Amino acid sequence: MDNKEIEQSRKKRISVLEDLGKGVYQQIEKGENPYLTLPVRGLSNVKYDTESRMITLGSGLSRRYFLNVGHVRKFIQTMAMAAVSRELIKNDKHTSLRSAFYQVRRTIPGTKIDVVDDQIETNKAIEDLELITDLTREQLNINANKNGAVAGEVTVEDRGDIIDWSKMGSGGWAVPSNVEDIIFKKVDAKFVIYMEKATIWDRLNEDKAWKKLHCVIIASQGQATRGIRRLLQRLSREHNLPVYVLTDGDIWGVYIYSAIKFGSIALAHVSDKLSLPEAKFMGLTMEDIDKYELRRHLIKFKDVDIARIKQIKNYEWFKNNKKWMEELSKMEKLGAKVELDAFTAKGLSFMTETYLPEKLKDKDFLD
Amino acid sequence: MDNKEIEQSRKKRISVLEDLGKGVYQQIEKGENPYLTLPVRGLSNVKYDTESRMITLGSGLSRRYFLNVGHVRKFIQTMAMAAVSRELIKNDKHTSLRSAFYQVRRTIPGTKIDVVDDQIETNKAIEDLELITDLTREQLNINANKNGAVAGEVTVEDRGDIIDWSKMGSGGWAVPSNVEDIIFKKVDAKFVIYMEKATIWDRLNEDKAWKKLHCVIIASQGQATRGIRRLLQRLSREHNLPVYVLTDGDIWGVYIYSAIKFGSIALAHVSDKLSLPEAKFMGLTMEDIDKYELRRHLIKFKDVDIARIKQIKNYEWFKNNKKWMEELSKMEKLGAKVELDAFTAKGLSFMTETYLPEKLKDKDFLD
Repeated sequence: MDNKEIEQSRKKRISVLEDLGKGVYQQIEKGENPYLTLPVRGLSNVKYDTESRMITLGSGLSRRYFLNVGHVRKFIQTMAMAAVSRELIKNDKHTSLRSAFYQVRRTIPGTKIDVVDDQIETNKAIEDLELITDLTREQLNINANKNGAVAGEVTVEDRGDIIDWSKMGSGGWAVPSNVEDIIFKKVDAKFVIYMEKATIWDRLNEDKAWKKLHCVIIASQGQATRGIRRLLQRLSREHNLPVYVLTDGDIWGVYIYSAIKFGSIALAHVSDKLSLPEAKFMGLTMEDIDKYELRRHLIKFKDVDIARIKQIKNYEWFKNNKKWMEELSKMEKLGAKVELDAFTAKGLSFMTETYLPEKLKDKDFLD
Repeated sequence: MDNKEIEQSRKKRISVLEDLGKGVYQQIEKGENPYLTLPVRGLSNVKYDTESRMITLGSGLSRRYFLNVGHVRKFIQTMAMAAVSRELIKNDKHTSLRSAFYQVRRTIPGTKIDVVDDQIETNKAIEDLELITDLTREQLNINANKNGAVAGEVTVEDRGDIIDWSKMGSGGWAVPSNVEDIIFKKVDAKFVIYMEKATIWDRLNEDKAWKKLHCVIIASQGQATRGIRRLLQRLSREHNLPVYVLTDGDIWGVYIYSAIKFGSIALAHVSDKLSLPEAKFMGLTMEDIDKYELRRHLIKFKDVDIARIKQIKNYEWFKNNKKWMEELSKMEKLGAKVELDAFTAKGLSFMTETYLPEKLKDKDFLD
């Protein structure tokens, strides 16, 4: 992607939103009851697609009518949000969910009725707009929260600045909330590691693990932000970099991997924009516990851990995966977790010098 | 500070820890019962120092003896942690609280007794070591969690990399967990704004507010991390930059300001390393609500907000401050809060173009 393509994308997104408005206008001119068509959200229409390996929405569609007491409020909110978004894209500015709420919050002209009373309404309107336009919030210039840092053998251009991820000291580059307009200038890295813990990132960054292994390291804290998920996806799709997820050996780590790879029920409507079916798990496995003599560092499960394992074993995207089912059963049987931090007992750079190189050499990933 | 001074600091810190070990060794050689002297922690010895305007520890001291059944475990844990820290500093490596626990976790040679069973013990040992050595955890190479981003007219050197905070695109530089070894190469900024919300930072960064106002903008999410507090302090002490705290108009914003400025009870033992009595509040005040016509966007307090106001009004460092007591009483009376995000209703760049310039021009800060 280059600056020209960014400009083209901007124009295209504006016209998608303007066409939406024109469509409604034409319906009114023809004397019709204006409506919007959008996929049904909610559990009934969420499914796991075995072909694409993503959690996606089914084909159920619904119509939302202007002249319908049950629909009109949502109809207006969606159109108001479309107007805000168009204005944002035109001015090349971005906003947050919270600010978007304030931008829409006004009375309907000539009445004392508020367009929105609560942010829940604008959040829903934004999701609806994502569905109607097939654009993500980020493409609608409404950003999610930002968190996390990146380092590695990649140089990007962002807002006119050239940023070399291999020259970011101990901090790294703060991953933006919106990575749509980033231009990759130079990608020497051979793969990407996403890790769940910022402290593990610090450890690997101090070791310059990304230099030794020729990769990119990214972390937020726990679940990957939308910005990071999209960045992982872009590095994978545009530059063919394998993406590995590095977590503790516990069910929460497995779920972090699951959300990155397959998507989630809550975000099923944007799975194709955020999920990464190619991602592989390079976190601690039950086998690693003996291989790396970590038995001394086991931490007994709580009830909530065990309940979560049972839940995840029932997810369709794990249920038919023999290797994963074996892994989850072993975890259940062991009744304990093990943390990546435990490697420091074997030497501060054990992960950089032994664990990661061995995982990579043996292609010891769960998929 | 330059690379030579960083190296000097490293050597000095090693010798502080080695002297600690030598002291205990000498006590043993003399046939004495080895002991460590450290200030009493806990509420009884925490006080607000009206002169330095910091929450600090009083003069109460305690001794911890090796040959004392009640003390021996803590004595050993503190010495074990000192050994880990010395090793870290010698190798110029850093660790986290969690990893430090694993590094110390072993049996005492010749016994089956574990040095530590739980991270709570190593956390305490690290705090004790901070008190005994007068070094912060960061100076002991044990880092806190990292979060937050910075942008502005400053260039630093960190681990050999030159990082220009004005060329960091939409992401900013990720503030490291440990900023002790950062070298300021060029400081053109005239002041610093810390804000509680990453989304507000995004807004100001997109406006390049730091360029228009010649400043540095920093945010984490809510309470400032230790790394950020220390960075604010260094920018203030070493470069005389005023530091302003930008928050919502609510009691939680006031407390974020309070912790940055006066320190906190939990971290009273490192107040001189983290607090910033010079910091000023540039967040939303009750007066601003009318000044900027934000009354439409008031959000009613919950019980927990009101309880927190009452609590904070009783803090010694607010109780004798007439302006702040007036502000807090107004807030209590109003019974509602107002968010910075509400400014977007007046235009996306209202903060950059109106609110911040006016606050600065009128020196409209609470102190």
